[in-house]
Amino acid sequence: MDLRVKFLGLEAGCKPIVILNTSDAEDLGVRSLGRVKLRHDGKESTAIVNTTHTVIKKGVIGVYECLRALMDLKDNDVITVETALPPISLEFIKNKLRGRKLAFKEIEEIVKDAVEGNLSEVELTSFVTALHNFGLDLDEATSLSMAMVKTGETLKLDRKVIVDKHSIGGVPGDKTTLLVVPIIASFDLTIPKTSSRAITSAAGSADRAEVLMPVNLDLEEMVRVVEKTNGCMVWGGSLHLAPADDIFVQVEYPLAIDPLLMPSIMSKKKAVGATHLVIDIPTGRGTKVKTIGDAHLLAKDFIELGKKLSITTSCAITYGEQPIGYAIGPALEAREALENLTRKTSTDLVDKATHIAGILLEMMGHKNGQKLALESLKSGKAEQKLREIISEQGGNPKIKPEDIEIGKHDLNVRSEKPGYVLWIDNTGLVELARAAGAPKDKGAGIILHKKPTYRVGKGEKLLTVYAENAAKLQRAQELLEEEVIIKVGDRMEMLIDEVKEVPVHEKAFILER
Amino acid sequence: MDLRVKFLGLEAGCKPIVILNTSDAEDLGVRSLGRVKLRHDGKESTAIVNTTHTVIKKGVIGVYECLRALMDLKDNDVITVETALPPISLEFIKNKLRGRKLAFKEIEEIVKDAVEGNLSEVELTSFVTALHNFGLDLDEATSLSMAMVKTGETLKLDRKVIVDKHSIGGVPGDKTTLLVVPIIASFDLTIPKTSSRAITSAAGSADRAEVLMPVNLDLEEMVRVVEKTNGCMVWGGSLHLAPADDIFVQVEYPLAIDPLLMPSIMSKKKAVGATHLVIDIPTGRGTKVKTIGDAHLLAKDFIELGKKLSITTSCAITYGEQPIGYAIGPALEAREALENLTRKTSTDLVDKATHIAGILLEMMGHKNGQKLALESLKSGKAEQKLREIISEQGGNPKIKPEDIEIGKHDLNVRSEKPGYVLWIDNTGLVELARAAGAPKDKGAGIILHKKPTYRVGKGEKLLTVYAENAAKLQRAQELLEEEVIIKVGDRMEMLIDEVKEVPVHEKAFILER
Repeated sequence: MDLRVKFLGLEAGCKPIVILNTSDAEDLGVRSLGRVKLRHDGKESTAIVNTTHTVIKKGVIGVYECLRALMDLKDNDVITVETALPPISLEFIKNKLRGRKLAFKEIEEIVKDAVEGNLSEVELTSFVTALHNFGLDLDEATSLSMAMVKTGETLKLDRKVIVDKHSIGGVPGDKTTLLVVPIIASFDLTIPKTSSRAITSAAGSADRAEVLMPVNLDLEEMVRVVEKTNGCMVWGGSLHLAPADDIFVQVEYPLAIDPLLMPSIMSKKKAVGATHLVIDIPTGRGTKVKTIGDAHLLAKDFIELGKKLSITTSCAITYGEQPIGYAIGPALEAREALENLTRKTSTDLVDKATHIAGILLEMMGHKNGQKLALESLKSGKAEQKLREIISEQGGNPKIKPEDIEIGKHDLNVRSEKPGYVLWIDNTGLVELARAAGAPKDKGAGIILHKKPTYRVGKGEKLLTVYAENAAKLQRAQELLEEEVIIKVGDRMEMLIDEVKEVPVHEKAFILER
Repeated sequence: MDLRVKFLGLEAGCKPIVILNTSDAEDLGVRSLGRVKLRHDGKESTAIVNTTHTVIKKGVIGVYECLRALMDLKDNDVITVETALPPISLEFIKNKLRGRKLAFKEIEEIVKDAVEGNLSEVELTSFVTALHNFGLDLDEATSLSMAMVKTGETLKLDRKVIVDKHSIGGVPGDKTTLLVVPIIASFDLTIPKTSSRAITSAAGSADRAEVLMPVNLDLEEMVRVVEKTNGCMVWGGSLHLAPADDIFVQVEYPLAIDPLLMPSIMSKKKAVGATHLVIDIPTGRGTKVKTIGDAHLLAKDFIELGKKLSITTSCAITYGEQPIGYAIGPALEAREALENLTRKTSTDLVDKATHIAGILLEMMGHKNGQKLALESLKSGKAEQKLREIISEQGGNPKIKPEDIEIGKHDLNVRSEKPGYVLWIDNTGLVELARAAGAPKDKGAGIILHKKPTYRVGKGEKLLTVYAENAAKLQRAQELLEEEVIIKVGDRMEMLIDEVKEVPVHEKAFILER
């Protein structure tokens, strides 16, 4: 069938989508979400079909921008359209839907087609949901990790040993990476750290680091920085290490599921050539892993997957029921990290960072890892190393904590009564910081004045919210009126909830604050 | 945030979708596939967000047509946009993703939001996939059926007893309904039959019936026809009985899964007020249910679900490894049905139709149901009844088989050697009929001359393909060159396939022709 091209000026990522009139689609024998092959002037491409009764007339084919360049098309070009078979990877997805184990070649095809935009949103969602429902075994996790490495770029460093760390996330205010990287690099160990930006949190490691230095480096610049300083802190998003991950995250995010957790992480570590790795598993209510038992199971899986991928892996199971340190939001967190590197304050942040660095040092054959890490901090060697990295990445190496700009608008939350801080709601805290503008407004965020078990007097400050703009501070204010984020009381209240009718649960269980 | 409206002139069903510039989306704290609340001039609506870097500029909001009417918007109107929570039904979908059983209220919310367009494609796909992976128990199937009835229209007939029949489908050429409805109605039993059009097959019951009479009736017209004749054959698509089904089918179709099979069918039967029902389960290779054991399990589930919904249900497990009768395609099938009603030929079609009608008659207290059904055919009473129904629905009641127009272009497939017909590939046959133009071109299709176990001589005709247009016949010809659809041989070939390397299966198993 020959159809006339009309451009729609719309982007849906770079998915090759065309819109056909329902009548033409019926003549071709193709339904919405089916596929057609397009041919024009020696060029060929496959596209996913949407149908319409109205917008596109019979004889016309609506084409998304993405295909314009791909097929070198102009408005009103006439192209040949015929039905096409779905990619073979769809059959493999259906195998997983039947609960079958997938072979490496099957997984490789699925990941390749995902990266090339050959799978529709329905097909991708179904694959991710089936992985979530049936789980992945070790072989499948290995295959996925390898396929994700294979379909992306890799970092080429001429080093025998490359170390790395990663947190599975879920705790607000976790600026550990900003301390661990310079500590490790100060021991002449290579740590080419890539990080992500916030998706649902108030700040990702890349957002924090960006307060101190540019993080949008390309692979070549990253190699240069690491060869000079042994470390770096770079945003992974533009490096195209395991780009399949970004595609799967698109459908995982609205469903709040994450079946690819391990392959996502491990593929990115393999892509930078890591040989030794510590995975931080924050554990407890309000984090991703609720119990220590579950954390141990996950740790075992990471270690086994690491073996399959030739990455020696250890896991740190860490306390995650409250924020790390006192600051939440990119600038506030960067400032707190810098303070802890320069002023030798002793906090939970230093404890966590030195333990994780210590595990890495012991994996490298050092003894008393945490003690060594702490010495690197106290001696100023870690600070010196951080400034080197800042300088190489193009930041100001002389930056002081007080140079960092914080939002000018603020409000305080004070305790309405004397008592003890019983708990802090991690999720509520993140919502509050986001309402105030984080992570986009780097100066927005929260400073905690009290943490659980601390005694407070009536009227004493519990936390301060900072915003760069007054309207957003107002939004945060409104949120505070609706939700209790930090609970002060005399004793733990024992009745959690009362359930009378047939319960229609909104959430997994009620302790899930 | 206040944004200026720009219409996109694009329909994605009637889903409320808006497109935001990535920067505005970040300011709002919403990601692609998140939700926003729109307010303008006293009207409020929720929409799902897509983001773009280029097409929509900062300060502008791209709006799909669907929202124009809903919110009474004009180009360049300024509307207020803020983040909105996802509907509560998304939490229930997540419960199913955790493998939990859903309560009626949860399922009701999901179905309601699906019908109202409040769930994104990712969310719907995930729900359907989870139902497929975890299965539904009887309570959930009941809840889904009831919720689907509740969110749609119902047929109001003043009859105590209403009978119905339904085939789960999967066999080409199954025109049984065209015989069963007039047979049953000729016994003064009420059978308000609704049918669907072809989705992946070469003809749906509604496509076949439409060759003989108009089938696009509304509920009021349908009541009038049934009150006058006791029967009807109407397309269910525009009646809005259980409209949720159409929405779920959108995502089931590309994945070739059908977890809602039972609720889809039973909700539509409940919506027409059926009290007694026969479900036809075609069984065997090349159909949906491969083994008689599986068919019995499915039959048990249908009968139990029927009990919950107060519909007395029986199941007919029928042979489905080859087409019913000899004709495939709307007009050819309608002609064959009419011949079997008027010329008293005795075929597998008559055997199947009279058995199914017989089961219904016995459920109503008659004895020797099949014999009675056969008498209704032979006596001409069933034919008489069909002509009444045709007349009431607005067709020509005097239509003769030879009046039905068949495609003018044809080609024959002949046997290359003498032997026996060993098998017919149901799926290949459907592909062939569709390539020739069915179901859209009503006159396109296939006549089989030989069926399995028949002896054929060299050069004897195996089948004839009909098309309304020469290009489509050419397409069918090309398909025939690629695939064996009807296999002639001396004996069954015993080696099915040889597997050497680590197998990467494209399909479930190789017998799945």
